[in-house]
Amino acid sequence: MSTHAIILSVGDELVLGQTIDTNSAYLSQQLSALGIATRYHQTVEDDEATVAEAIRAASTQASLIIITGGIGPTEDDLTRQALARAMNVPLQTDADSLRAIEAFFASRGRTMRQANCIQAQHPRTSSVIPNPVGTAPGIQAKLNDATIYVIPGVPYEMRYLYHHVIEPQLRAQGPATKTILTAQLNSFGAGESEVAHKLGDLMQRDRNPKVGTTVADGVCSVHIRAEFADSEQARTQLQRTIEQVRQRLGAIIYSQDEQTLAQAVVGLLTEQGKTVTTAESCTGGMIGSMLTDVAGASSVYVGGWVSYDNEFKKRELAVPDDLLAKHGAVIAPVAMAMARGALARSGGDIAIAITGIAGPDGGSDDKPVGTVWLALAEQSNDDAQTPAPAKALLLNLSGDRAAVRDRAAKSALQMLRLHLLDEPLDGIQWAVKQSSSPADDLK
Amino acid sequence: MSTHAIILSVGDELVLGQTIDTNSAYLSQQLSALGIATRYHQTVEDDEATVAEAIRAASTQASLIIITGGIGPTEDDLTRQALARAMNVPLQTDADSLRAIEAFFASRGRTMRQANCIQAQHPRTSSVIPNPVGTAPGIQAKLNDATIYVIPGVPYEMRYLYHHVIEPQLRAQGPATKTILTAQLNSFGAGESEVAHKLGDLMQRDRNPKVGTTVADGVCSVHIRAEFADSEQARTQLQRTIEQVRQRLGAIIYSQDEQTLAQAVVGLLTEQGKTVTTAESCTGGMIGSMLTDVAGASSVYVGGWVSYDNEFKKRELAVPDDLLAKHGAVIAPVAMAMARGALARSGGDIAIAITGIAGPDGGSDDKPVGTVWLALAEQSNDDAQTPAPAKALLLNLSGDRAAVRDRAAKSALQMLRLHLLDEPLDGIQWAVKQSSSPADDLK
Repeated sequence: MSTHAIILSVGDELVLGQTIDTNSAYLSQQLSALGIATRYHQTVEDDEATVAEAIRAASTQASLIIITGGIGPTEDDLTRQALARAMNVPLQTDADSLRAIEAFFASRGRTMRQANCIQAQHPRTSSVIPNPVGTAPGIQAKLNDATIYVIPGVPYEMRYLYHHVIEPQLRAQGPATKTILTAQLNSFGAGESEVAHKLGDLMQRDRNPKVGTTVADGVCSVHIRAEFADSEQARTQLQRTIEQVRQRLGAIIYSQDEQTLAQAVVGLLTEQGKTVTTAESCTGGMIGSMLTDVAGASSVYVGGWVSYDNEFKKRELAVPDDLLAKHGAVIAPVAMAMARGALARSGGDIAIAITGIAGPDGGSDDKPVGTVWLALAEQSNDDAQTPAPAKALLLNLSGDRAAVRDRAAKSALQMLRLHLLDEPLDGIQWAVKQSSSPADDLK
Repeated sequence: MSTHAIILSVGDELVLGQTIDTNSAYLSQQLSALGIATRYHQTVEDDEATVAEAIRAASTQASLIIITGGIGPTEDDLTRQALARAMNVPLQTDADSLRAIEAFFASRGRTMRQANCIQAQHPRTSSVIPNPVGTAPGIQAKLNDATIYVIPGVPYEMRYLYHHVIEPQLRAQGPATKTILTAQLNSFGAGESEVAHKLGDLMQRDRNPKVGTTVADGVCSVHIRAEFADSEQARTQLQRTIEQVRQRLGAIIYSQDEQTLAQAVVGLLTEQGKTVTTAESCTGGMIGSMLTDVAGASSVYVGGWVSYDNEFKKRELAVPDDLLAKHGAVIAPVAMAMARGALARSGGDIAIAITGIAGPDGGSDDKPVGTVWLALAEQSNDDAQTPAPAKALLLNLSGDRAAVRDRAAKSALQMLRLHLLDEPLDGIQWAVKQSSSPADDLK
């Protein structure tokens, strides 16, 4: 039979709804890229009999079963036992695993508990999958015609073992009967309906490659899925649709596949040999955090200020007292002063600044929650030009505090990216006004 | 039989992993509050036969089945047809539903498509659940001994129909035969096996209330579930177990239920009327971001520095040049100098600082990736005391760059919290050495 997968996730907290299972979706996506269709996901509680029954049922309906969760060191981790029950074999201890777990604890100067020993056990006739990134080894087994992999539910470990063990084995099983290739283009700045409108006929359901959109944290991603018998045709068609999508959406697309907006920005700064500094108020360090999340950010990011209160803005960034006193902190000239202050103190090439009202309190009729000013200042080649040239952008964001902060920080990164590319800033749909300095400075 | 539920979600995008199913978790939580246990969640593709088979299988294992998704107007919405197939009855059109759908489109000035007519159909012998918030009516049916509800997958509509139709019916079925109450205690600083070791017999599988643990992003949460016929007894027993867990784990528990570590810290600072400032290197603004994620943080957080490169550390935080030149940035005295520099410049009461190697590059035998120094400095009542008293804590973290940064930032918040509570810092298990200043300063 052709390979069909079933994905089981195990955990009381999942069935009770206290935790949302994201592993199954991740694994399906990965399998899909290999041309393996997932038949279903099932989430079951930490109960030996229930898990065993779910494994048995799955083993008659699919040739590949991936199970996540339930192999931790505690008493409510019973997937190991359930697998043994489904296979009708006893558990046995794997000496290598035991040594690896001992070594893991020793290397971290932590005490190994008796409970961790259970993690070295696996059903007889199954084999152990070493786990170099955690204490719970995985298990590989056969039941009926199904190959079963058990891996930890901790997302980082799950992904590691999938990519280092399971994926290579699946790839080695030879060519799939058809080729499914997928790509994802990520955009920031426009809503999903606007993106869909621009994509137009590319989104027709019966099209191949198929084009769909999803939104997560303000990022609208375009998913493309090409399914062809011929792998070369799949590749060509996928590439063609990628180009069509890029053409229709333009500069708001910042990356393909997994690259984040911050990675795209760090990449551009690196290419252009420029450094950046940050002055953040309402985002409190999020932009810095997003930039430094990228390995290698140190060559383009010198550091910055979280100028959360007004005294801090005045003292550290030389924001004029009378501006703050007269207009408060959420106006274009304050944003620009913050950017210029950071630029002057840091010695960076470009500064981005952000000041706004994240809510839930602090809004007014005049400046409702979600009002955010971004500013960008750049060192001029003409040293005589003081103050440094700057521009500001007003955002009107909706959503709760977390959403406003997240969109504000990402908008600042997108503003920086468009600036580096010499693209107009109007790709940021929720920016309603742009003011250029020094001429436009509020007096 | 007592009420057991099974939750089915239908959709290609869910099985393919393009969308994460959050409906099932939401519904389980709601049912749990009514004393109804969920047996399992299953996610199946938009295929009539597959959905019908999932419904049939579920109807023999539970008395309540809630199905979300697959009742939209497009060709791939097949849950209606699948239910009819499982029940072995034909579909029929409901005249009221048809009129309601027509009215819905008219009121929004939108054109009703032929495809929307299918949404007025339901299996014969089933009844229609009117949907005032969307175009897809729900369906209520009986199969074997199970009551089946089909509602839309759109979260807003799903929640509306659950709370306005399903929940009242479940409540009307008389008092629950038992009460299930849950609580969650969140700890940071110890691994899951250490937490389980301390909880000991509380985690026995047959105990009621049941105690389990999960780990996400370094936070080890203890889940407690009390299931009793008598609701008063459920409350008392839950409370008693909460106290036992608190007693055994001590100060590493920072909150109950949904409260984050940053919220706990902001709460404590507010109570004590103290302000904090931050000086972050490897975390690049994460601590500031976590603190300012809390509404009301402005009264306790003045702001801080992202002193990412060494020039920045010297110029802005007065970290001594020779210290950096001789030992690099990842040593206790640098962390303490950063904290003292931030304290002096900011005028805050307490400063926390962080400097470390987040990886993947930059590690050495001496200081591998994951080596992070935290420091805390506090204004002294004795103004003459210069430098301000400070303490430092060395962390040996494992995981990738994102994990190291996240654990480092959270450890800094936990360090601050333990300091505010006058608790020893040894609750942070991965801290391997503590050095107090100024005596311990590296010369």
